[in-house]
Amino acid sequence: TDSKLPDVKTTIFTEMSLLAQQENAVNLSQGFPDYQADENLLKHLGDFAKQGYNQYAPLSGIKELREEISRKFSLQHHTDYHPDSEVNITAGATQGIFTIISAFVQKEDEVIIFEPAYDCYEPAVILNGGIVKNLKMLYPDYQIDWEKVKNLVSGKTKMIIINNPNNPSGKILKQKDIDELISLVKNTDIIILSDEVYESITFDEKPHLTLAKYPDLKERTFVVGSFGKLLHITGWKIGYVCAPSDLMAEFRKVHQFNVFCVNTPAQFAISKYLQNIEDFKSVSTFFQIKRDYLKNALKETPFHLLDCEGTYFLSANFGAISDKQDKDFCYWLTQQHKVATIPFSAFYKDKNDEKVIRFCFAKKQETLDTAIEQLLKIK
Amino acid sequence: TDSKLPDVKTTIFTEMSLLAQQENAVNLSQGFPDYQADENLLKHLGDFAKQGYNQYAPLSGIKELREEISRKFSLQHHTDYHPDSEVNITAGATQGIFTIISAFVQKEDEVIIFEPAYDCYEPAVILNGGIVKNLKMLYPDYQIDWEKVKNLVSGKTKMIIINNPNNPSGKILKQKDIDELISLVKNTDIIILSDEVYESITFDEKPHLTLAKYPDLKERTFVVGSFGKLLHITGWKIGYVCAPSDLMAEFRKVHQFNVFCVNTPAQFAISKYLQNIEDFKSVSTFFQIKRDYLKNALKETPFHLLDCEGTYFLSANFGAISDKQDKDFCYWLTQQHKVATIPFSAFYKDKNDEKVIRFCFAKKQETLDTAIEQLLKIK
Ligand SMILES: CSCCC(=O)C(=O)O
Ligand SMILES: CSCCC(=O)C(=O)O
Repeated sequence: TDSKLPDVKTTIFTEMSLLAQQENAVNLSQGFPDYQADENLLKHLGDFAKQGYNQYAPLSGIKELREEISRKFSLQHHTDYHPDSEVNITAGATQGIFTIISAFVQKEDEVIIFEPAYDCYEPAVILNGGIVKNLKMLYPDYQIDWEKVKNLVSGKTKMIIINNPNNPSGKILKQKDIDELISLVKNTDIIILSDEVYESITFDEKPHLTLAKYPDLKERTFVVGSFGKLLHITGWKIGYVCAPSDLMAEFRKVHQFNVFCVNTPAQFAISKYLQNIEDFKSVSTFFQIKRDYLKNALKETPFHLLDCEGTYFLSANFGAISDKQDKDFCYWLTQQHKVATIPFSAFYKDKNDEKVIRFCFAKKQETLDTAIEQLLKIK
Repeated sequence: TDSKLPDVKTTIFTEMSLLAQQENAVNLSQGFPDYQADENLLKHLGDFAKQGYNQYAPLSGIKELREEISRKFSLQHHTDYHPDSEVNITAGATQGIFTIISAFVQKEDEVIIFEPAYDCYEPAVILNGGIVKNLKMLYPDYQIDWEKVKNLVSGKTKMIIINNPNNPSGKILKQKDIDELISLVKNTDIIILSDEVYESITFDEKPHLTLAKYPDLKERTFVVGSFGKLLHITGWKIGYVCAPSDLMAEFRKVHQFNVFCVNTPAQFAISKYLQNIEDFKSVSTFFQIKRDYLKNALKETPFHLLDCEGTYFLSANFGAISDKQDKDFCYWLTQQHKVATIPFSAFYKDKNDEKVIRFCFAKKQETLDTAIEQLLKIK
């Protein structure tokens, strides 16, 4: 059998987490918290299971959770989605993204992706016969050059994928980017996939500009979210997608045959937990303390830090330490200094090497301290 | 945007469950238990969450659960799969099936499907540019005519999908079918997708013949299983696929970008629960009592019952009651007699109407009694 994805290997996150384990290194590679989530949320899960919420949910997700998502958009962004026709719960954001791409991308359709890019977009496009048009955001600012985007757009452009806040660069879109995007897609049929899984994690009072806020974008956009990131439960695998009802109808055709529906007790636990939250700002505050702690410590090392405006990733150039390829440097750092990270080249199709690596700071104080102690030894 | 699945509607299961609710009818349509699962299993879920098992699982699933699946195969079928390279946990059997088809079916590849067929196979094939070759198993025996299958096989045949025990017909494969299948695929590259989600539910001492038992089939087969059916927790959405490592490697390439991984606390809860089970025969016994109860009651009605060898579905011809189309009959039965069922035509591409409907008997005694009371009024 010839492979439909001949170039695909196990993801870099799996590779580095395994290496961290083998090397007994602090794992700042794969993005997941190593501290406990709120015990009330955890208790809800057991309670709903015991109370008998263990059979199929509706294919769109339970109404209670769709309503909470709608409420969250009003609260945070003064925009809303209709819980019945415009919101759908998914088995994690990844399943939402894969399903959106499967529902819309057809043979020879072009999809614009900005690099560094999270690794799940391209394989989904290829699997559906689409063609990826990559555009690099360049070190050290990772801004989008909208003139270049314009040149990439053609009659074949089916979809543009935005990741805001961006993993791995930690950059967020500015009003100027939004304006450019609006003028770019005007009078086209381009669909936008806006991966906003880190929407609740932005720093220094900078706002997250969800595409849902702009009617000219919202009408053609899937916004993707993740409770794993919001509530520190990446292993529950509950995410969501929001879109206008005509797009959502096509999404659901594929969703119902991909997973049909999503874990029921987890949906109830999350919806009950969210009912008591009136303000999501504390998530940013929580992570900003961690970011600042790691940032201040790394200033004492030869790493050159990149600006981190959002996400729970801080990135740094290691050019002053080594001229190794970034992935080789990550192996060396894990093996010699017992700190595992992610090389930026993993986010480029051409393995572009800017000598930049990514640290995950969604870790408890103790973990950050151990990593910092190790990193301070680097000359 | 033109639809990739123009013919797809909301599944019949969603449609009939909604109708049942609207009509305040007993819901024997969608297949799910309405009684409580084992409280030990439910308790495990809450316990693992509280103990902090809430972050990403490995993409193949947690080792503990993969080992239990391997042990289950040895115990029940005296065959085994290597837990590391041949077993993968999925977000329900449906996600396993969708991912298998996405990983292997390419443009113009042909896939043979036997009708009546569960509704998730065909859309996945079409989405991947494949061509479905349907073959009807005929009322009332729903046997496979292997001569006809031979005529359907060509150099373009990529995959054959088997569903054993079969939903909706309740029929199981016999040794003769296995022998025919072995000779059919010999010296071909055909991949077999064996949907065995009801493998633990067969009646009257008839054995479930998993394709995993036959080396000539196992080498090319994905066996798909479901803890929802085995443990009465359809809403947890945990299933699995097993296959030789070369096929599994391709599966994982797609799986990691479809869902990446699956709900962690549910995986731990199930694996701990399975550790105490030495024998899965009680599942068949449990359901056989329900089947017999419903069967004996329906004998007093004008329904003509079909033979049910496995699954938790009992089917019946209603020709003596009405000459309505089967779906119209289901609406009538729900509205007039307050019992919701599923029409067999939903399992045929051409909506073939054999005047047969399906009753789900995975219901508590009280529910079955209410349904029976209603059905006995039919003249
Ligand atoms: C799904 S594993 C990867 C987790 C993650 O989002 C990241 O590390 O970037
Ligand atoms: C996923 S909803 C359908 C449940 C089921 O397997 C059936 O009713 O046949």
